[in-house]
Amino acid sequence: MTNQDRAALTPFALRLAEIARGETMHRWHEGIGAADVEDKGGGGPDFDPVTDADREAERAMRAAIEAAFPDHGIAGEEFPDRPARGPFTWSLDPVDGTRSFTCGLPNWVTLIGLLDEGRAIAGVIDVPSLGECYWGDEGGGAFVRAGREAPLRTSGRTDLAEARLSTTDPYLFQGAEREAFERVRASVRTTRYGHDGYAYARLAAGTIDLVIESLLKPHDYNALIPVVRAGGGVIGDWTGGEDFSPGKVIAAATPRLFDQAVALMRDAA
Amino acid sequence: MTNQDRAALTPFALRLAEIARGETMHRWHEGIGAADVEDKGGGGPDFDPVTDADREAERAMRAAIEAAFPDHGIAGEEFPDRPARGPFTWSLDPVDGTRSFTCGLPNWVTLIGLLDEGRAIAGVIDVPSLGECYWGDEGGGAFVRAGREAPLRTSGRTDLAEARLSTTDPYLFQGAEREAFERVRASVRTTRYGHDGYAYARLAAGTIDLVIESLLKPHDYNALIPVVRAGGGVIGDWTGGEDFSPGKVIAAATPRLFDQAVALMRDAA
Repeated sequence: MTNQDRAALTPFALRLAEIARGETMHRWHEGIGAADVEDKGGGGPDFDPVTDADREAERAMRAAIEAAFPDHGIAGEEFPDRPARGPFTWSLDPVDGTRSFTCGLPNWVTLIGLLDEGRAIAGVIDVPSLGECYWGDEGGGAFVRAGREAPLRTSGRTDLAEARLSTTDPYLFQGAEREAFERVRASVRTTRYGHDGYAYARLAAGTIDLVIESLLKPHDYNALIPVVRAGGGVIGDWTGGEDFSPGKVIAAATPRLFDQAVALMRDAA
Repeated sequence: MTNQDRAALTPFALRLAEIARGETMHRWHEGIGAADVEDKGGGGPDFDPVTDADREAERAMRAAIEAAFPDHGIAGEEFPDRPARGPFTWSLDPVDGTRSFTCGLPNWVTLIGLLDEGRAIAGVIDVPSLGECYWGDEGGGAFVRAGREAPLRTSGRTDLAEARLSTTDPYLFQGAEREAFERVRASVRTTRYGHDGYAYARLAAGTIDLVIESLLKPHDYNALIPVVRAGGGVIGDWTGGEDFSPGKVIAAATPRLFDQAVALMRDAA
């Protein structure tokens, strides 16, 4: 595959986001209630709703990838992995924030990542409910909000005491994780909750400075990595490295801010 | 004031929401950063940003009320109260969820309540970032989402184990309050965070079943009361009564759900 072919993959990822939107938005507006939601985890703390939107959007994106790039692999949330016959694999999460979707809330996104030999090289965070879209690859990144496109650029904030922190749900941190998170929470300017992948989009765009999460799966984090990096941000694990597989992720506006968060979180890594 | 005059007050409240939108939306899109934010509370746990949007929207709404109803009182967040010369007082919170606004997040609303001798009789929850608006008075209530108007109606859910719970920030609960909240959290189907007044709008519209919060001020809760009730929901205090002044509020889709939440929260009231 030539460099020009590679450059066509981000526009293709944006086309996938559009395809997903066609499956998700009308179902969200129809007001899916929890009664309609299947339960993957058997209830309790593993409660993880899956909607028709999730399944149908993944099905539609898979069909588009298979038609355009039959050699590419596909790793989604809803269906079995499709092995690659080549370097590229797509990582799909049609509805990241399914609980928000189920509760009629706008805080859900569609995540589309592209891996080259396992390394995330392009990502899209699409926000259908807000009409926003964020994308990044090795050539840079941009976002659309209120119909206007602008380059991604983090806030540049370096001081933890001034940072705007986000995590989806503080109760997802257990034991030492919770203690570590509370150290960070007590050190920052303000903390927001409930945003799943959208928090990383706003970090790349400069209005959130720090995101700390645990229990992320590959389809949750693969798309985020190129978007955060395209904005000049840092994303890594709680030890300061780049092993995302334990699902413990820190994203920060700057390396200095990242290092300060790592210093407080690494004991719980 | 005749009944017909009273009936004109909800449309006027919707006009106020439109006026506020003209002051808030462009400032939100301009991406206000925390660096631009004043600090009312002296930092730390009282951190409470106020933006230009908040001030200018309240100023514009006050001017409209003073021109149309010179006898009405005004109680806002940003300026001193204007005493009423008659039964009616407006309760204004131009940006409820200022932290979300500051973080570039959509989870902020404009709250407009109308009190008759201190009793909340009409309310508007406007959601500029989503193009949604929710309103209710003694004659009923409705909302607009995706350009379509529909009547407000809660989910009708009665079972705590099936409930979708929302609270803005669990760290706002202290000591016994936190223990009580965690009892509820452990009993429900799912919990969402970060929504300020928007959670009550979605409760009235049927996709959230239960909201529990503390530390609410009159400009936070006055507008919510008529909206929740117009949808057939129940809103009261943690003892099951209607004394909102301590700022401890429970809103529920049904009386049965309200009673179950009160049973778990009342020790901390």
